[in-house]
Parts: sequence; C-alpha cells; structure tokens
Amino acid sequence: VIGLMTGPALANDSVINNIKNTSNWATQLGNYQGHRYSPLDQITKQNVKDMRVAWTFSTGVLRGHEGGPLVIGDTMYIHTPFPNAVYALDLKNEGRVKWKYEPRQDANVIPVMCCDTVNRGVAVADGKVFLAQADNTLVALDANTGKVVWSAKNGDHAKGETLTAAPVVVKDKVLVGISGGEFGVRGHLTAYDVKTGKQVWRAYSTGPDKDVMIDPKKTMMMGKPIGEADLGVKTWNGDEWKIGGGTTWGWYTYDPELNTIYYGTGNPGTWNPAQRAKDGKPVDNKWSMTIFARDADTGQAKWVYQKTPFDEWDYDGVNENILADLTIGGKKRKTLVNFDRNGFGYTLDRETGELLVAEKFDPKVNWADKVDMKTGRPQVNPKYSTFANGEDTNSKGICPAALGSKDQQPASFSPDTGLFYVPTNHICMDYEPFKVSYVAGQPYVGATLSMYPAPGSHGGMGNFIAWDATTGKIKWSKPEKFAVWSGALTTKSGVGFYGTLEGHVVAFDMNDGKELWRFKTPSGIIGNVNTYMHDGKQYVAVLSGVGGWAGIGLAAGLTDPTAGLGAVGAHANLGEYTQLGGVLTVFEVPNRKQSAELKK
Amino acid sequence: VIGLMTGPALANDSVINNIKNTSNWATQLGNYQGHRYSPLDQITKQNVKDMRVAWTFSTGVLRGHEGGPLVIGDTMYIHTPFPNAVYALDLKNEGRVKWKYEPRQDANVIPVMCCDTVNRGVAVADGKVFLAQADNTLVALDANTGKVVWSAKNGDHAKGETLTAAPVVVKDKVLVGISGGEFGVRGHLTAYDVKTGKQVWRAYSTGPDKDVMIDPKKTMMMGKPIGEADLGVKTWNGDEWKIGGGTTWGWYTYDPELNTIYYGTGNPGTWNPAQRAKDGKPVDNKWSMTIFARDADTGQAKWVYQKTPFDEWDYDGVNENILADLTIGGKKRKTLVNFDRNGFGYTLDRETGELLVAEKFDPKVNWADKVDMKTGRPQVNPKYSTFANGEDTNSKGICPAALGSKDQQPASFSPDTGLFYVPTNHICMDYEPFKVSYVAGQPYVGATLSMYPAPGSHGGMGNFIAWDATTGKIKWSKPEKFAVWSGALTTKSGVGFYGTLEGHVVAFDMNDGKELWRFKTPSGIIGNVNTYMHDGKQYVAVLSGVGGWAGIGLAAGLTDPTAGLGAVGAHANLGEYTQLGGVLTVFEVPNRKQSAELKK
Ligand SMILES: O=C(O)c1cc(C(=O)O)c2c(n1)C(=O)C(=O)c1cc(C(=O)O)[nH]c1-2
Ligand SMILES: O=C(O)c1cc(C(=O)O)c2c(n1)C(=O)C(=O)c1cc(C(=O)O)[nH]c1-2
Repeated sequence: VIGLMTGPALANDSVINNIKNTSNWATQLGNYQGHRYSPLDQITKQNVKDMRVAWTFSTGVLRGHEGGPLVIGDTMYIHTPFPNAVYALDLKNEGRVKWKYEPRQDANVIPVMCCDTVNRGVAVADGKVFLAQADNTLVALDANTGKVVWSAKNGDHAKGETLTAAPVVVKDKVLVGISGGEFGVRGHLTAYDVKTGKQVWRAYSTGPDKDVMIDPKKTMMMGKPIGEADLGVKTWNGDEWKIGGGTTWGWYTYDPELNTIYYGTGNPGTWNPAQRAKDGKPVDNKWSMTIFARDADTGQAKWVYQKTPFDEWDYDGVNENILADLTIGGKKRKTLVNFDRNGFGYTLDRETGELLVAEKFDPKVNWADKVDMKTGRPQVNPKYSTFANGEDTNSKGICPAALGSKDQQPASFSPDTGLFYVPTNHICMDYEPFKVSYVAGQPYVGATLSMYPAPGSHGGMGNFIAWDATTGKIKWSKPEKFAVWSGALTTKSGVGFYGTLEGHVVAFDMNDGKELWRFKTPSGIIGNVNTYMHDGKQYVAVLSGVGGWAGIGLAAGLTDPTAGLGAVGAHANLGEYTQLGGVLTVFEVPNRKQSAELKK
Repeated sequence: VIGLMTGPALANDSVINNIKNTSNWATQLGNYQGHRYSPLDQITKQNVKDMRVAWTFSTGVLRGHEGGPLVIGDTMYIHTPFPNAVYALDLKNEGRVKWKYEPRQDANVIPVMCCDTVNRGVAVADGKVFLAQADNTLVALDANTGKVVWSAKNGDHAKGETLTAAPVVVKDKVLVGISGGEFGVRGHLTAYDVKTGKQVWRAYSTGPDKDVMIDPKKTMMMGKPIGEADLGVKTWNGDEWKIGGGTTWGWYTYDPELNTIYYGTGNPGTWNPAQRAKDGKPVDNKWSMTIFARDADTGQAKWVYQKTPFDEWDYDGVNENILADLTIGGKKRKTLVNFDRNGFGYTLDRETGELLVAEKFDPKVNWADKVDMKTGRPQVNPKYSTFANGEDTNSKGICPAALGSKDQQPASFSPDTGLFYVPTNHICMDYEPFKVSYVAGQPYVGATLSMYPAPGSHGGMGNFIAWDATTGKIKWSKPEKFAVWSGALTTKSGVGFYGTLEGHVVAFDMNDGKELWRFKTPSGIIGNVNTYMHDGKQYVAVLSGVGGWAGIGLAAGLTDPTAGLGAVGAHANLGEYTQLGGVLTVFEVPNRKQSAELKK
C-alpha cells in the first residue's frame, strides 16, 4: 500500500516530464534549476525582426502582473494579481477560456501587501494547478476543470502575512513561502502534501534551531558546521526575532540529483537598524538575508550563507538561486549563482555552500567595498552605514537603493554561452531610519527613503547585463530608462528577451547585447518573458501590467515621492509611458510561406 | 469686434479642415455626414493579410470602451469609460502620453448608467478637446495641455441623467445629448458656445412645441407641415411626457450645405406601454423615437419623422443618421439613411424628411410586417404587441430584441460602392411588461426581458451586412457568433473593418463580405475601428474593452439571465472568449522593404 502511494505517482515525475518536453514552459523559471532558458530555436537573430503579435488576452485585472504563462501541451495557464484569477486557455482554440478560477478574497489583504498586489504565478503538477492566494490560502485546482481539490491556510493577513510567491512542487510536496517583512512577519518556508494539502514541515527563518530546522553540528556555513546553537535567537535584540522578517517571497529552485531545495530569506524586521542592534552593537540577525539549502524531503538545512548580516538598507535577500554547472579555475563545479538585492553577484558551491565568487554586478554599488572571501561578510563602507550614521539621520547617495541592484525579476542562464543574463536596477537612495513600534498588521518599517537614477551614469534607472559568474565580471551592459523589472529569457538560437517598465518586449543578441527588436505591449512589463512551441511553431509570451514595487505609484495611485517606501519619486514620470492593464501578448515569427507570398 | 469673434475663427472651420486632411481621423464618425469612410488606400485586399500590430496602449480602465481614437496631425486622442480619462498620445513618439486628463467624478453616477459606464468619445475643435463626462459635465480641455478651459453642467445624476454620447462641434457650438431613458429622464439636445461654454439653445424631445423647438406651421412631417400644435404633450397620458424619455444618447450628424443637424430620440419613458396609453389606447408619445432635422444655428426643427410611435419594445430610436447622396429611381437625392433599433433601414430625403425606403435589414424582424409608405407608420403584428398582449403577459419570440437589430454601433457608407456596411444584432426576445412607479433617480423600466439568438437562423447573434439603401435590400450578410457591437469602417481600397464582441478585428472585402483577415485583440470590441495616416503610412486603430449593453454581464459582473435588462442571458458565455480590459491596438502593414528583406 505504501508502495502505491509513494511509487511512480510522485508529483514531480509529472513536473520533470513536463519540463523535459521542451515544447512546454512548465514552471515559472522554466526548469527546476531556474535557468529560464529554452532549447527552442525557431526564432533566430535573422528572423526575430519580423516577430509580431499572434494573439492577445486581457486578464480583466489592473495592477502589477508578475510571473508568466505556463504552457503544458495544448493548455496555457495564466494568473492575475489580487483577486488572483487563474485562466486555463485552449491553445488549439485561439486562447479560448477552458476554465476560470476566481477566489473571493477579503479586500483587507490589499493594504498589507507591501509592494503592489502581485502574484508570481502558478505551478502545475500531478494534474493540479497550485495557486498561492494573497489571502494566505494555498489552493490546488483540478487542472482540467479549475475546481478546487483542496486548500490550506498558510498565514493570517491580520498579522500582515500575505502570499505573492509562486509555489513550487518538489516530489510529493508543494513549497510555499510567506510575505510581510515590512509588517514584522516571521518568515518561513512550508511544505504541503501535494495530494492532501496537509502541512509536512515548516522551516522558520529566525528563532531556535529546531524551528529553523538547523542542526548546528551538521548544517554547514562557509565550508564547516555552524557549530554554535540557536544563532537565530542569539543574534537578535531580545525577542526581535519573533517579529524578525526573513520572509520568503522570492523564487525557489531545486537540484533533483542533490535532492536539495534553495531559497533566500528577506530583510530583518524593522528597517531601522538601531532597533535591531544588541547592546548598541550590530548583530547578525540570523537567519535573515540568508541562502538556505535544504533537504527536499525533510526540510533540514544542509547549508546556509548569510549575504547581508545586520541589514541597514532593506537588501532583502530573496532573489532566485540559479543552479548551474560551471568551470571555475579549470574545475567543473556544481554552483549556485545569486544576484542579490545588495548588488553582489555570488557564486557558491551548491553542494557545500562554499563561497567561490562575490563581485558587484553594478559598478555603482557603494554600501560595501567588497565581500571578504574568508568570512563571507561584506566590508561595509561606514559612510553608507545607516546604523553608524544613526537614527533620524539621512544617509545620502547609497547605491543600490532599497529596490536593490536586482529585485524579484528573475535572471536567465544559458548553458550554451555559460553566461547569466540579468535584468537590473540602477538606482540609488537616501535613507533615514526612525524609531517604530510593532503593532500586528501595521507597517513595521521605520525608515524614510528617496530614490533616483544612479548619479554619474547614463541617467537611466536600469541595465540589462550579461554576467560571467566564474569570474564575477560584467560581459556587456545595455542601459534602460527604467528599472528592468521583468524576468529574462534566453534561447538556443542566441536570442534573448526581457521586458521594460514602459511595456517593451526587447529581443537581444546574447553575444553582445545588441538590440534586435522591440515592441510596445499595452502596459509596463514586470512579468517574465516565456517561450513555448505549439503545433510545431515557437511562440514568445508575456504578461504586461505595470506595477510591483517599481510601479507602485501607478498601481496604487500614489504621487508623494517618498510614498511606496520611496519608489514613487524615482518612477514619477512612468505614467507618460504606460498605464495599468493586465494583458497577455503572444508573439510569433510569421512563417516562411507567408513571407514568400508577400513578394507577389 | 463682433467680426473678430464670429469671422474666420468659427470653430467648425477647424473641424472641416481637420476632416479635409484625409490623414486625420478627425471626428468620431470620420466626417460630419457620418460615413466612417476613409480615402486612404495603402491597406489593400492583397496586403491586408499581412496586417500586424504596430503598437498598443492600455488605458488603465476596465469596462466597455466605445467610440474610438481621433487622430489630428501628430496627436491621437483617446478616452475611457467612467472615470472618463482622456489621453493625448504623441504619434511621433510611439504613443507617449503628452497629457492625461482624469476628472474626479461621483461614483454614484455609475448605478444610473443603464448600459455600462460607456463614453463614445471626444470631439476636437478650435484648439480644444470636448468631453461629455458621465456626471453631466461638459468640459473643454486645451488640446495642447489637457487643462480645463471651461466646463458646463448639462444635467443631474440624482434624477438619473448621465452623459455617454460624443459631443459634436458644429460651427461655434458644441452639441450635447442626455442619457437616462430608463430613469424617466426627459430628453434634450443642447448647444453650448464653443468659446465660453454658455448654453445657447436646448431642444427637448417631449412637451410643448416651444420646448421642442417645433413650429407646427413650418416643421415638416412626411412632406407637409405638422399642423397640429403641441403633439409632444397631446400624444401622452397626462403628464407622462415630463418623464417621457426620448433621450439623445446616439450620434449626431451635420450637413454643412443645408446647415442642418440630424439626430434621433430614444424610447418613451417606461417600457410598460399600458402606462403610456391614453384612455386605454395606444398614442404616439411624440417626439420619442423620432429623427429630428434642426437648423444648426437656431436649433429650430426643420422636419421630424417618428419611426416607432408608441414603442412597446424599447426600440430606442437614437441610431446615427448617415447623410449620403444616392440615386433613387434615376434621381440623385440628398438622403439620410438610418438603421433603426426596430430593424428597419430607412432612407429619407434629408432636405424634406420625405420617406423614400423602409425595409427590414434583418429578415427575422417580426414585430411589424412593413412600414406604410404613405403614413410612415409601421404595421405592427398584433402577436408581438406587448400592449395588446397586456401587462404581466410574457410576449414571446419578438424580433429584434430590445438590443435592436442595431444599437449604438455606427455603420459605414462608402461613396465608392454606394453601399452601407452595417454591424447588426440577430437576437430575439420575450418581453413581459409590468406596472412601475416613477421615483426620481430610480429605474423606470417596468418590463422583464429575456434574449436569445434569432431562432431558425445560423445560431449566432450577429450579422455584418452590406445594404443598398436605394432599394432597401441586403447585398450580403456575414454571420457572427455574437452581436456585432463595434462600429464599421470602409476604405477606398475596398477593404472594410469591424470588431467583434470576442475581440477580433475583422477585415472584409467590401464587394462580397469575404473575410480577408482577423486578429484577436486583448478584449471584446464595442468601439469603432478608425484609420489614419502618419508619416506617410496608413494605420488602423481600435479600442478594445468589452462591455456596453451587450457585454454588461462581464462589465458589471452580472449572471442572472434577465439581469442587465435582459442582455445577460444572451451573452452568458462571452466570458469564455474575452475578459475586461481597455486597450488601444494600432495596426499596420509592414512595408515592402521589410517584406523584401524577409527573403534573405
Ligand atoms: O519583505 C517582504 O515580505 C516583501 C514582500 C514582497 C512581496 O511579497 O511582493 C516584496 C518585498 N518584501 C520587497 O522588499 C520588495 O522589494 C518587493 C518588490 C516586489 C515586487 O513584486 O515588485 N515585491 C516585494
Ligand atoms: O435611454 C437611454 O437614455 C439610453 C442610454 C444609453 C446610453 O447612454 O448608453 C443606452 C440606451 N438607452 C439603450 O437603450 C441601449 O440600448 C444602449 C446600449 C448602450 C451601449 O453603450 O451599449 N447604451 C445604451
């Protein structure tokens, strides 16, 4: 009987099979490793200039559309921001709606979403579609009918908890994070049983080792066991760890061979570092800002690496960890590559957690001079230490801004070029911390920010870059007017794609970043560009719908420059380029027959 | 001084000049005569199959988008449903927003809009953009800056009055109608001074001749003076004329040579005919359901023609009156052609109001057998008389439904073919009138309706037809799944266009209706397809955004089949095809150079 339940019916068999069929775009990041790469090659450097819109579909929802369409066989699955509608669209029938799921959610969820009412998409596995609703409901829908199979409660929005991250199915479990770092939420990653929705394990980001699922004797840090117990309590000022943030709203990756899942934790509790100091001194606030490698079955931490101990800038460390096999110093390594909010691109050994490379992926980064490769700790530049400068002092000219050199927008890795293609922000800030009291469900921020384009640069607020993670060097950099808040895509043919906040889909040459094509979709793009093949033809698809933190001024109708945690001012004139609206746009290159007919 | 004010600066000089420049699309109906025809011919029967999206722009507003983009020189003006935003887009700069106007309007307006929160577009004249806001504010904006120059109050939503119609500038006046026939609003057309916003005249649709601006000795009806005075009072039951409907929410056309404006009035007060009968007998309820020809300066009625006296079906007579010079019986006539809600296509002499042709433009029309050409009155089929059948009796199988054989969607006239191209509905209904009391600001309907595709036909709810108005014959008819609720466009090259409720833009051969091309825009189309030339290239542009009466189920989230005055049931499965979302889509045919390059 046990055999029947755990044998060939493992849910991730379906995910693995769906990924293997390269016509599909089966998971939000394209594969478990987070590559956002497709071996499809019909759209080439030569013909991409003829790319045109094949069909479109309005989602019926305004505000920021993150994540992207999944395609499995003849069906495309798309989702929306709050109220989190999900559509199954029939690709054989011009995107006709096979089913629509639209939960009724308490609108009181909206004010506790820090950075727009976003949702990063659904997961499909085991004949089900998994959706993490803003109201903390994880729901499993029948993939054929859209009917609810089971649902589970993952949090409570009265405490400021919400869900925005895409769930990921690994083996027989669905992994779900939590949002609310700006509300003093104590972060965790939770695994639910795919079949029943029963909670299997929950690993907190702060607190005693038991809660964090750390074994100080076994869990590794910088190449050796952590040693000391309960650092998730000891590195905090009193009970601050209980409202200590370290939320888990980013992307989760998985190495099936190592049976390990990888994710990062967010900023510690309040943005006012003085409140988090212990006896007036900086303290690590573990395990905020940490990359976790966990056993996929038990949830136990295999290794940890904290990128920004004692955060003083909201360099929320949740960005995706891309798993790639790279040759470093002549040696083939199983690596993990992370482009952190703090502006450093990290390359680690994903088996051991050993730090291999840590370099700035935006040359303007100034809060730290470098990362000490022995200790793994950043060397903070005291000038930009908002703690050293003190409460109620405005620290100016800090790069990057709290938006980070990269935020939620996932990068891409091409196994062909061995390079990473990274949508980045090029924004700096002034940051003034102030005292704040914790009240459940109220913002627990304690800082006033203003943001602006990186001074002394090209004047724009974004770059799209190619990155060599073996050396930590930028190979090329392509400036953009606004933060590049959209996920990148690379393909076998050497053509890559990303979206812009103005709404362009951009195709570029993966060799040199040369722009090959650009098209203005209905609204700004903060979603991810995906590709798939249907009926023998390659398509590129993306959700437009401006919003997210970068577009919060437009999304929530804010105009005070310091509103939206400081993001509004920087993007004040975005409305001249684009307005709200959720639309799927599907592109194709017209086939050769049509091209030939043109001549006549 | 008077010379300075009334001389060469007449506002309609600018309109006439803007229309003359055929690169523009200068008025909602393309020209004063309502032709919706363009002499542009770059997009041909041969190359239209290569038409593709040039650029797009989300309006940031959901619900039904009617009307269409105006293009004057390098600027495109678009508008949205409530809250009635207006954008000026820079065509030299990929549609970048030059300015945005967004009024703050009382949301209590929304529930008194009968048929979605639509707006049929702006007018541009005299350096100003004129917008009729839902809240009854007529506003003149500076065309360069979007700043308010003046505003005028045209009604009161507390009484159920709203504005949806596009204003039209004729000479030094702006013409504005009124909506609210379903709330017992007494209709009128009002002229405001273009420079100051001062009211110049107001002509009511019901009441004493003075109010209606009729001179019974001079105003013609069926070729002779009306004769009898105050029919707008006498043909009503008591004071019913004061809440008598006859609203004016359709399109207004203008003949500069005859200096005459043309428009129609809507249904009389309640939909329950028993309440409007006088001494238990049908009575005309004049001047509801009437085509008015008025002097453009004085507003005085030149002639009238009532199409559906004593309406028993909500065959609201506001549809556009297209002015065309046609040869009938060997004689060149200045005609007016009207495709009425009631299913008859009327051809009248627009100088005299003489009735020339009145034939069914949908063969399924059954409420009347024909129009008596002597009296101009329909011969009502008693079986479908909701008055004869009586209150609280459900009259079944009436064709057309209250949605009419055509509603707000404007038709097109091609001077090249001499034919009319008409988007039509193919829907029938059951209609059960009941007693209702008038309460200001509350619905004054008094009927329960259900609607369904015309039985015994192709199963769809729409046809797009070509019509010969000289003989009253359908030349060809092209079936559609849903009501064709979008305005048609014809062009010199013999290619015509319309939109579908599913969201397709369709290109057809004007000779035989053969479909040449079809593209799925983000949302259902109830706006009008327009064309223009910029920088030497022809574009086709349309606003998507499903809604209007036909799409009210989706727009307002209604599901009861008899909700939305009966329109919901008929379009119950529209949501399988499209969802809400306001998006401008601009199309082009890629140029030959690009096509040639394709070969390499
Ligand atoms: O601390 C948190 O829990 C949390 C949650 C989220 C979120 O769930 O969207 C964001 C952030 N923080 C954040 O710091 C951030 O920059 C951010 C950007 C966005 C976005 O979608 O554009 N979300 C979030
Ligand atoms: O009687 C009125 O005043 C009135 C107003 C309107 C309107 O303003 O939109 C419509 C109607 N009636 C109406 O009968 C009707 O069929 C209709 C359709 C639509 C639409 O935009 O789809 N509006 C209206």
